[in-house]
Amino acid sequence: MKIVIIGGVAAGTSAAAKARRNNEEAQIKIFDADRDVSYSGCGLPYYIGPEIEGREQLVPRDAKFFKQKYNVDVYTSHRVLDIQPQTKVVTVQNLATDEVFTEPYDKLVIATGAQAIVPAIEGIDKPNVFYLRNVLSADRIRKHVLETRPQSAVIVGSGFIGLEMAENLTARGIAVTIVELAQHVIPALDQDVAIYLEDHLKEKGIAVVVNDSVVHMEGSPLVNKVVLKSGRELVADVVVMAVGVRPNVELARATGIELGTTEAVRVNTKMQTNIEDIYACGDCAESYSIITGKPFYRPLGSTANKMGRIVGDQITGGDLEFRGGLGTGIFKVFDMVVAQTGLTEKEAKREGYDVVVCHNIKPDKPEYFHGQEMVIKAVADKKTGKVLGAQIVGKAGVDKRIDVFVTAITFGAKAEDLFHLDLAYAPPFSTTKDPVMYTGMILDNALRRGRKLITPAELQEKVEHGEEVQIIDARIAKQYQEAHVEGARNIPQEHIRTELDSIDKEKVTVTYCNKGVTGNAAQNILLNHGFKQVFNLSGGYKNYGKQSEK
Amino acid sequence: MKIVIIGGVAAGTSAAAKARRNNEEAQIKIFDADRDVSYSGCGLPYYIGPEIEGREQLVPRDAKFFKQKYNVDVYTSHRVLDIQPQTKVVTVQNLATDEVFTEPYDKLVIATGAQAIVPAIEGIDKPNVFYLRNVLSADRIRKHVLETRPQSAVIVGSGFIGLEMAENLTARGIAVTIVELAQHVIPALDQDVAIYLEDHLKEKGIAVVVNDSVVHMEGSPLVNKVVLKSGRELVADVVVMAVGVRPNVELARATGIELGTTEAVRVNTKMQTNIEDIYACGDCAESYSIITGKPFYRPLGSTANKMGRIVGDQITGGDLEFRGGLGTGIFKVFDMVVAQTGLTEKEAKREGYDVVVCHNIKPDKPEYFHGQEMVIKAVADKKTGKVLGAQIVGKAGVDKRIDVFVTAITFGAKAEDLFHLDLAYAPPFSTTKDPVMYTGMILDNALRRGRKLITPAELQEKVEHGEEVQIIDARIAKQYQEAHVEGARNIPQEHIRTELDSIDKEKVTVTYCNKGVTGNAAQNILLNHGFKQVFNLSGGYKNYGKQSEK
Repeated sequence: MKIVIIGGVAAGTSAAAKARRNNEEAQIKIFDADRDVSYSGCGLPYYIGPEIEGREQLVPRDAKFFKQKYNVDVYTSHRVLDIQPQTKVVTVQNLATDEVFTEPYDKLVIATGAQAIVPAIEGIDKPNVFYLRNVLSADRIRKHVLETRPQSAVIVGSGFIGLEMAENLTARGIAVTIVELAQHVIPALDQDVAIYLEDHLKEKGIAVVVNDSVVHMEGSPLVNKVVLKSGRELVADVVVMAVGVRPNVELARATGIELGTTEAVRVNTKMQTNIEDIYACGDCAESYSIITGKPFYRPLGSTANKMGRIVGDQITGGDLEFRGGLGTGIFKVFDMVVAQTGLTEKEAKREGYDVVVCHNIKPDKPEYFHGQEMVIKAVADKKTGKVLGAQIVGKAGVDKRIDVFVTAITFGAKAEDLFHLDLAYAPPFSTTKDPVMYTGMILDNALRRGRKLITPAELQEKVEHGEEVQIIDARIAKQYQEAHVEGARNIPQEHIRTELDSIDKEKVTVTYCNKGVTGNAAQNILLNHGFKQVFNLSGGYKNYGKQSEK
Repeated sequence: MKIVIIGGVAAGTSAAAKARRNNEEAQIKIFDADRDVSYSGCGLPYYIGPEIEGREQLVPRDAKFFKQKYNVDVYTSHRVLDIQPQTKVVTVQNLATDEVFTEPYDKLVIATGAQAIVPAIEGIDKPNVFYLRNVLSADRIRKHVLETRPQSAVIVGSGFIGLEMAENLTARGIAVTIVELAQHVIPALDQDVAIYLEDHLKEKGIAVVVNDSVVHMEGSPLVNKVVLKSGRELVADVVVMAVGVRPNVELARATGIELGTTEAVRVNTKMQTNIEDIYACGDCAESYSIITGKPFYRPLGSTANKMGRIVGDQITGGDLEFRGGLGTGIFKVFDMVVAQTGLTEKEAKREGYDVVVCHNIKPDKPEYFHGQEMVIKAVADKKTGKVLGAQIVGKAGVDKRIDVFVTAITFGAKAEDLFHLDLAYAPPFSTTKDPVMYTGMILDNALRRGRKLITPAELQEKVEHGEEVQIIDARIAKQYQEAHVEGARNIPQEHIRTELDSIDKEKVTVTYCNKGVTGNAAQNILLNHGFKQVFNLSGGYKNYGKQSEK
């Protein structure tokens, strides 16, 4: 039994390790064109910043480790040139010696990963324009940063790698500008969530340019200026391209292996490609959504690891199968944590769901325990009541709440189920009702109990379309006077009961307070007094104000 | 519609608020014999320590708040003397004026809470012997501590209140001794988990006396010495009794309301008692286990809140029902967090489950990100593969993992499901495979893949019973030489393949390493070479050594 694995980072080494655990006899070889294997790609940005001192922390394992521990032969600097499925051999080139040889296989695993997208931009090939993809590329950026002490950096792209780089370059004393083609940073998130992060970046001194792109880069031999489509020019001692990655599928394509609609290698739940005895896993392979059942491409270390383990099991007779993903992501930028799982509002709508959306602003623990507010935007399906997705921004406790959402959504939780969770409560960790429970209550009240919500965007749309809406600010007068929704009338919640006669029961009514709770109380009073259509403003004035700052 | 609620802490006020949200017309009255309502009972220990400065942080709401916000009338210092279900009235005494009056109800809610258990011990009525139950009692302890500056304290009982008190009194510079009747601290946990906490307490300078109890207290007018059953004497400037609570059911019992097997008020999922239109919720009411379906008593703020909201909904025509609990608990003592959900090993065995048990020792995030180890003890059912419970001790990230277990167990997760969760991964938050996923893998490997585990206790039992076991220490020689399991032979994992002939395939074999991973690798090698019975030592030497220190 000969197992050949092409690629030795997360997926490839996981496959090898699992195969060996199951099968002591198999011969297992990993070929990787790169210098390093089994490294933590997700740790790379922190190696450029001051957080991680030594490269060995990111690359704890080498060929010797795999030989001793797993009896697996790892060949670094070995590129697989082609695959011959009929004769079941691969052709391999030793990049150090240029020697070319063939290697037979019984089971072949393609774990070739992904590469940074390189847009066709003049000047992009200059030596101070970097991509972050592997340890070598991280070494190059780190060396450049430490040796040339750049003053300014332009980061192109604002996905999580771009943002983590922004933080780490800032930590090196570099003035950072982010350029994002989309309307807002982190295009994968909904705009009304991304705005919280964008503000935080600006607070931390990052210049953020959205809705713009790089047309060329000037300077020689090094880039010193980046010119944008808008005409704007940015000085840059260093440029980091982080506009996304695409799967490395050249080898697969040349072999006649089918690609999916996402351009990654199509696999079934056993991670099999269309060619017998050839498997694919990791960043080169297509994943699929647990929620929609449709293929998606989510190159993440955690997924790669999981897929690799499944392949390792399958090729040694096991029955592990891939169950899809939720596209869960999390990252930290400065003091803010951003996490997401399942469908965003725009994705859910694109998929045709009729959705309820809420913005729940809550502290991660009691105020007397120094709780810090997070914003949970959650989306549920009106038809089934199921939670479709959550996006969270905040400073503490975000990772816990997203993982509870992940687990709940995986098991098909309805919004109403969240309130019933017996989550762990003590003041150092949570509020008596956890923010996740509140989110479920808000969604369920909207879904099944007539406590409808309206998002700031929906309210603005109504107003812009000239719909007649009476807006009631249920906060105390002082808060109203400081700032309020245009056209809103101030009736503090404690006076609503006595002011009922002055409000029109037939009109569409929107209530709000600061974060939503008192707005909901006002909404309840009106509904209980026979008002026909009352919406509570999702996330209250706090969220509304945030959205209208832009 | 008249709603009367007896008790105004977590459950009573939740019931009132929810009832009002649903129904604007109802008259809602809360009677509470205490001075304070709606306070955070769980925050009280931190108010005695320096963490919480002002009492108002714990008692943010008063009668005025409830009137303004919810149009609910709160009567503090009002004791309900009796309930007359035939005429549907309660008799109330105003404790300030001694005035007695009757109050009619359509729906009655009993939320009378719990009280500290007061053992019959000579001297227990002295003024420096305290119980922590409400804000008044916390005020008394705080005042005594700040005014008399005690040097030494004895805390009787080591549940979470006792331990939180230990931390907070230590923070006030007091030398603390804990006296626990059971074999180990936190009797609700398994001993092999509690040992981790016990060591931490000792590290922090707490004296821990287990398997002992107080027989009398000496000194006058103040206690200055506590005498134990063992004869041991402890000096004490202050004594805190924290041996547990019991439900306040005198009023219910006198009314003919049924109690459950736990001595708390028996309720159905609608929180109805056996008497029409009388409901119970919070610390006076019985709960039940989601796992076993059997009644249990778990007086917790989070459960009280939940039950209260359900009652509030039910009495105003809603359909919310209680779905039981998992007995989830969490607390922090000094730098250590202890959390638990579902069944412990001893509970599961008592319930008749045939269980698989694992001890998974993993960092909460990568070492290069300063990850700190936690120990997850998890229990799964051999018959169904379902996860029955988890106990976790560690310094960071414990609350997240327990809540993922809570959510998974609630939805009936099997051990095999945990690996598939698409949990949020980035180096500041987790390892590529989260500790929860690893736990699922270990349990599933034991349940379905023949990778059996043996706990330190089970191994000791085998040895004590004279069973012949060959024990293989798969660590490097240096680690073996430092300390090892008695009778173990050292064959570093990388040499096992070449040493196979020297190991007896027919004998029961136990492999181990430091934490379990390499022990499992060794186990795999042996099983793949035809060994009949191979167990991996759960939690490796790290856990074994911890258990044998005692």
